[in-house]
Amino acid sequence: MILIISDGIGDVPVPELYNKTPLEYGDYPSLDRLSREGINGIMDPLKPGFPAGSDTAHIALLGEDPRKVYRGRGYLEALGTGLEPGKKDIAFRVNFATVDRGIVTDRRAKRATFGIKELVEQINENINIGIPFILKEATGTRAALILKGNDMSSEVSDGDPHVDGKSPLKFRPLSIGMHQQKTAKILNDFVAKTHEFLKDNPINKERAKKGLLPANYLLIRGAGTRPDVQTFQSRYGVKPACIAATALIRGVAKCFGFDLLPVKGMTGEYNTDEVAKADTTLKALKNYDFIFTHFKPTDTASHDGNPAKKIEMISKLDNLVSIILECVKPEETVIALTGDHSTPCCVKDHTGEPVPLVIWGGRVRTDDVSHFDERSCSKGGIGRIEARHLVNILMNQASKLKKYGA
Amino acid sequence: MILIISDGIGDVPVPELYNKTPLEYGDYPSLDRLSREGINGIMDPLKPGFPAGSDTAHIALLGEDPRKVYRGRGYLEALGTGLEPGKKDIAFRVNFATVDRGIVTDRRAKRATFGIKELVEQINENINIGIPFILKEATGTRAALILKGNDMSSEVSDGDPHVDGKSPLKFRPLSIGMHQQKTAKILNDFVAKTHEFLKDNPINKERAKKGLLPANYLLIRGAGTRPDVQTFQSRYGVKPACIAATALIRGVAKCFGFDLLPVKGMTGEYNTDEVAKADTTLKALKNYDFIFTHFKPTDTASHDGNPAKKIEMISKLDNLVSIILECVKPEETVIALTGDHSTPCCVKDHTGEPVPLVIWGGRVRTDDVSHFDERSCSKGGIGRIEARHLVNILMNQASKLKKYGA
Repeated sequence: MILIISDGIGDVPVPELYNKTPLEYGDYPSLDRLSREGINGIMDPLKPGFPAGSDTAHIALLGEDPRKVYRGRGYLEALGTGLEPGKKDIAFRVNFATVDRGIVTDRRAKRATFGIKELVEQINENINIGIPFILKEATGTRAALILKGNDMSSEVSDGDPHVDGKSPLKFRPLSIGMHQQKTAKILNDFVAKTHEFLKDNPINKERAKKGLLPANYLLIRGAGTRPDVQTFQSRYGVKPACIAATALIRGVAKCFGFDLLPVKGMTGEYNTDEVAKADTTLKALKNYDFIFTHFKPTDTASHDGNPAKKIEMISKLDNLVSIILECVKPEETVIALTGDHSTPCCVKDHTGEPVPLVIWGGRVRTDDVSHFDERSCSKGGIGRIEARHLVNILMNQASKLKKYGA
Repeated sequence: MILIISDGIGDVPVPELYNKTPLEYGDYPSLDRLSREGINGIMDPLKPGFPAGSDTAHIALLGEDPRKVYRGRGYLEALGTGLEPGKKDIAFRVNFATVDRGIVTDRRAKRATFGIKELVEQINENINIGIPFILKEATGTRAALILKGNDMSSEVSDGDPHVDGKSPLKFRPLSIGMHQQKTAKILNDFVAKTHEFLKDNPINKERAKKGLLPANYLLIRGAGTRPDVQTFQSRYGVKPACIAATALIRGVAKCFGFDLLPVKGMTGEYNTDEVAKADTTLKALKNYDFIFTHFKPTDTASHDGNPAKKIEMISKLDNLVSIILECVKPEETVIALTGDHSTPCCVKDHTGEPVPLVIWGGRVRTDDVSHFDERSCSKGGIGRIEARHLVNILMNQASKLKKYGA
């Protein structure tokens, strides 16, 4: 089984594209082949109308109910960067941002990665906040932070204002308690000290010379602890692997017990090497039963509000699928292709519209859909389902489920 | 956002209409425009196949799970007539009925309202049952009753046989307990005393002169207490208003914190002034974010088993929609039109078939449906959803939902 998730792929009619969505507008022969030879539908990541985060959506996609098991994004992000936070540690998401005279001018310092790794190292070596911490770089200007200690709490607010043009926020306890207060105090101290350390840092001077925005402030958010999920192998009896660049997705997969496969040239950015990802997916079929291949840049283009770029990224996805299709047989391999949520280019954020879904291979009841897009798939044989049911549908195609009852 | 609910609009093929439903048979240009320019689907008020009451259906339509919060219809009906029952009061629905020689000959005294208001006043003044009570008239021959006191219970059976041609029922406790016993006893006493008071009442003699059936018996049913729902404003951050004549619907909306807007000429009956309702809906857009406009007579025609009348009433609804459509823009206003349940004319009661649904405006993914009816909408882009998800879908279109997760 191969599950391909194209992040944020769902969209809505775009006026510049003659009221077509990026999926409807572009020409994607391999995606269309999946639709033509498979069974199609639309899928709500959580519930109809409800916008999902990437974390909660992927927890649902892997078969668990996020309302029961989700404990914040930070832990997943940290796990995905390669950190191994302990059971009592609190983990956070971090962006290197640009702050100018107290105002966040770019929450992601234009995603320019130059020098970020060095800045992370320097912060780990030089900043003292009285308790052990680990900062680790992720993709782009993202990073993860772990606060260690037995008296920390994830019940603290974000320091990230979540939009440009505002001041960073002070951390506050979200409930009454000594641990919450202490954690908020430590975070405020950490952000102040790192800002002081970063603003005149030689690396930021080099960034300036290159015309890049300074990475002079740590926006911290998404306090989290370990979600309580069952491993995929214990639940379904299959050996699973994940191919993903994005730290968060790697973290979710790791929580479910997926092996994380390395791919050279996989970046999670526009320049990611989709050929290498397809090759790794195909190779993994030899050693694994279930391969989850994640494709991030469709979501990035959507957050950037760029339909033309989204079309270009869907073409890369189409190329990835074409390579896989060349080498697998429908009798042996079941492929599902869908998204984790809709991110319309006009909204630049996750929304509650359902995503298109196609399942190819196995013994699927094919339908009349011949184009993989939001509206065509809504006429398909799957109808409208919730994401938490998808893994069961795939496992059924692969005859991996025991009947309930007798 | 405008949510238009046409009560009981769903129907089934009618032989006299060449096996079309009243929605399929008639010519409704504005409803069809909504379908053509919007996204369509079918909706189960509760669960597939399950017939809903108007109260439980509306609780679901406003986003709550009736299985968790519903506490009987009487309280909602009382609230909707303008009564303000206390937390411990028990409220009931009442029909002024015609009883002849111990048999209910017309459960609604032919809906003739003449003299009902005066009879209600006289009962409040003259009847003594040992505890405080309030009777209040609603639309048609309907009324609401509140029993006050700390030792009352809603665990009592109905006095209404629910069909003509049978005797009224004795009230019985539905579970063991002093309060249940006392409440049943008081209700039996109340019905006996009011029947005695009504049967030779001068107003009923006047009704007879006019050729109207006597309103000589109080059929009481639907004991209820306050449902535990969150207000719409606290849940979604929008300011809501309701335009409805029917006491029950007004009561449900009031429970959810909707302002009830007055409309001259709004009756909830066949003669309701749909133009005035449309005008009030449009005016309300200035001061409210979410307007729930209820249209009752489609259900009345269905309960009366009259497909021709239902078609006439849907034409009135079409006129209401046409006036609204003339004055709103899809970029600014999201309109949803649906029903609370199906009431097929051939059944004359609520059934479990889904209702058609259209959503117009916002960034909806339009579909190929061009006619608003049960069968056309089933081919639309929404697919089949449950009513409790509708508000989230609308709030998503208006970008009023925060994502769950990150």
